[in-house]
Amino acid sequence: MSTAGNPITCKAAVCWGSGEDLKIETVQVAPPKAHEVRVKVEYTGVCHTDEFTRSGQDPEGDFPVIFGHEGAGIVESVGKDVVNVKVGDHVVLLYTPECGECKFCKSGKTNLCGKIRDTQGKGLMPDETSRFTCKGKPILHYMGCSSFSQYTVVTDISVVTVNPKAPMDKTCLLGCGVTTGLGAAVNVAKIEPGDNVGVFGAGCIGLSVIQGAAQKKAGKIIVVDINDDKKEWAMKFGATDFVNPAKDLKPGESIVEVLTKMTDGGFDWDFDCTGSVQVMRNALESCHKGWGQSIVIGVAAAGKEISTRPFQLVTGRIWRGCAFGGVKGRSQMPGIVQDYMDGKFKVDEFITQRYPLDQINKAFVDMHNGNSIRAVINMSA
Amino acid sequence: MSTAGNPITCKAAVCWGSGEDLKIETVQVAPPKAHEVRVKVEYTGVCHTDEFTRSGQDPEGDFPVIFGHEGAGIVESVGKDVVNVKVGDHVVLLYTPECGECKFCKSGKTNLCGKIRDTQGKGLMPDETSRFTCKGKPILHYMGCSSFSQYTVVTDISVVTVNPKAPMDKTCLLGCGVTTGLGAAVNVAKIEPGDNVGVFGAGCIGLSVIQGAAQKKAGKIIVVDINDDKKEWAMKFGATDFVNPAKDLKPGESIVEVLTKMTDGGFDWDFDCTGSVQVMRNALESCHKGWGQSIVIGVAAAGKEISTRPFQLVTGRIWRGCAFGGVKGRSQMPGIVQDYMDGKFKVDEFITQRYPLDQINKAFVDMHNGNSIRAVINMSA
Repeated sequence: MSTAGNPITCKAAVCWGSGEDLKIETVQVAPPKAHEVRVKVEYTGVCHTDEFTRSGQDPEGDFPVIFGHEGAGIVESVGKDVVNVKVGDHVVLLYTPECGECKFCKSGKTNLCGKIRDTQGKGLMPDETSRFTCKGKPILHYMGCSSFSQYTVVTDISVVTVNPKAPMDKTCLLGCGVTTGLGAAVNVAKIEPGDNVGVFGAGCIGLSVIQGAAQKKAGKIIVVDINDDKKEWAMKFGATDFVNPAKDLKPGESIVEVLTKMTDGGFDWDFDCTGSVQVMRNALESCHKGWGQSIVIGVAAAGKEISTRPFQLVTGRIWRGCAFGGVKGRSQMPGIVQDYMDGKFKVDEFITQRYPLDQINKAFVDMHNGNSIRAVINMSA
Repeated sequence: MSTAGNPITCKAAVCWGSGEDLKIETVQVAPPKAHEVRVKVEYTGVCHTDEFTRSGQDPEGDFPVIFGHEGAGIVESVGKDVVNVKVGDHVVLLYTPECGECKFCKSGKTNLCGKIRDTQGKGLMPDETSRFTCKGKPILHYMGCSSFSQYTVVTDISVVTVNPKAPMDKTCLLGCGVTTGLGAAVNVAKIEPGDNVGVFGAGCIGLSVIQGAAQKKAGKIIVVDINDDKKEWAMKFGATDFVNPAKDLKPGESIVEVLTKMTDGGFDWDFDCTGSVQVMRNALESCHKGWGQSIVIGVAAAGKEISTRPFQLVTGRIWRGCAFGGVKGRSQMPGIVQDYMDGKFKVDEFITQRYPLDQINKAFVDMHNGNSIRAVINMSA
């Protein structure tokens, strides 16, 4: 019996309140309305951004909610007027949608689509309602994805069909972490052969930046992390040097001085992959005078601000940032998946833990312990 | 009798200490050493940067010193090995030199030359001494120019020969203010026809940005200044709108909100020409999400820092800055002077006051009163 047109009852990890653990609940997932797609989620990654909102640091976080935004699955049914995906397609969910029609999409200058921004930010579908119900209560969507549910409903601009031969326990990671880092290095930065590159933070995003920089034949790729265990990881992905500012500095020496010396003047490009505003400042100030560009990728806690002396900018350093690696999901994701299939960059190596849905809280504990790069959740197990 | 090879005794405006008025003194100007040029200064502008150091706000300011960095004159004599200028050449002094040989000059990415940076910053010639003496004491150079002396000595990379038909009471202003603003708009920013441009502060630099933006056929050119008298000036140079944040805001409304509304989302490019770190923040946050770039030109007071939420960068705004409009003086100044001669931009209109050297302190008073765009000092009068 087809489920199309009817509500589906399935399991999901619900977060009922700020700072609470996720609870595996039975939820009802309403059928997709016009321009919406219902997806059977097969695998999802767990990202620091999920934890950021769960922990209560995200000022725009609201509850109860179903987190998850690194999801891969199969289209179960589509609503009216959906033309870009069909039932049975293997898809990746896109927390940065692409409508192709708004001022942003048409600008040719950014991957940030404006079409559903307001309702996505509120955890709602474009008609200002939710498709999830649990114990009679509506449950909010998250980042337009909610991949911590066995079935989810997303807008048709938030989903892209990819090669069905690509393993979904890997393509889910292309929905955020890997693409965010790789895209920042290859799309946003214009790294030229021999350029010196700095990467602050060697988690999933930082490691992806490293492999993007290596692809672009960067000169030095210097990784800065306070966890020595990350050195081996960084080197495996293509770093040339590793600095632990908690251990490797001489008395009175700053990390900016050390990095500037190591690079004969500073980085041509560097990347904050930590979310710490102090690290963001160090990253900017470690850039080369005259042309160095510092790219903020990490998400800072609520109320935190970055600062520097304006002299840093007047003398030619550039401070910028990006989301989802500057990647336009519907246009570029099929090619990114194909590049992965062709062995152009690593994805499998990021997976350090695997859990069934009912052990999803373990993935959050692993992140806190710093002994995880990415945990992948098998939503059917 | 030729003066070449001998010290010259002439008048100069000396500042003996932080915060003091300038004093017209008789000074001795030593002959130029190798790779140095002695210039008879004909005209000089007076810039806020001179005042910044005079007032004591500049942490690197040192005394006694001869200020002035917007100078035009005639080469009186040259030291050994000088090949790029000769006696009798009409020249513009360059506080941003161009050696053509250092890492910076060869990068093709910046106009900041590194060759004499250290000694210039200390107020000395490259051999770590001064060419100025007054009452038996050495007097410091300023920004590699010291155009407030009837004769000055500069390095050969700090001077460029221009069309001798160009009037020097105008070309002096190309040595800083006009070029700094115009260059920021036409060299550093890549303004496309129809782009919305914001200009914060309508002094000499801001007005020059306006005319650069108008040259590039910008759409709206919105000028923000707390002095209503600047409205007429801004319009004359090509602005389309003027906002006075001290008067034109409704209760509870911020300047960022007003500007974002006026531009349907924010500026494609905007420029801080004030030196206020709060204005720099407003400028960044008034940029269009996804691509807007804010360019810091103004010089902030010692210890002041710029701040914003990193979210502003992650959502695509770019914060940068420039010095001397990104212009490489020796390569580009002859063409800029020619463009001026060909009527491609206004310079004469900037001159609101003219003084002989012995009334130079009046130019500083005018700046404080805000009723001056540029005062030009006739060094021979």
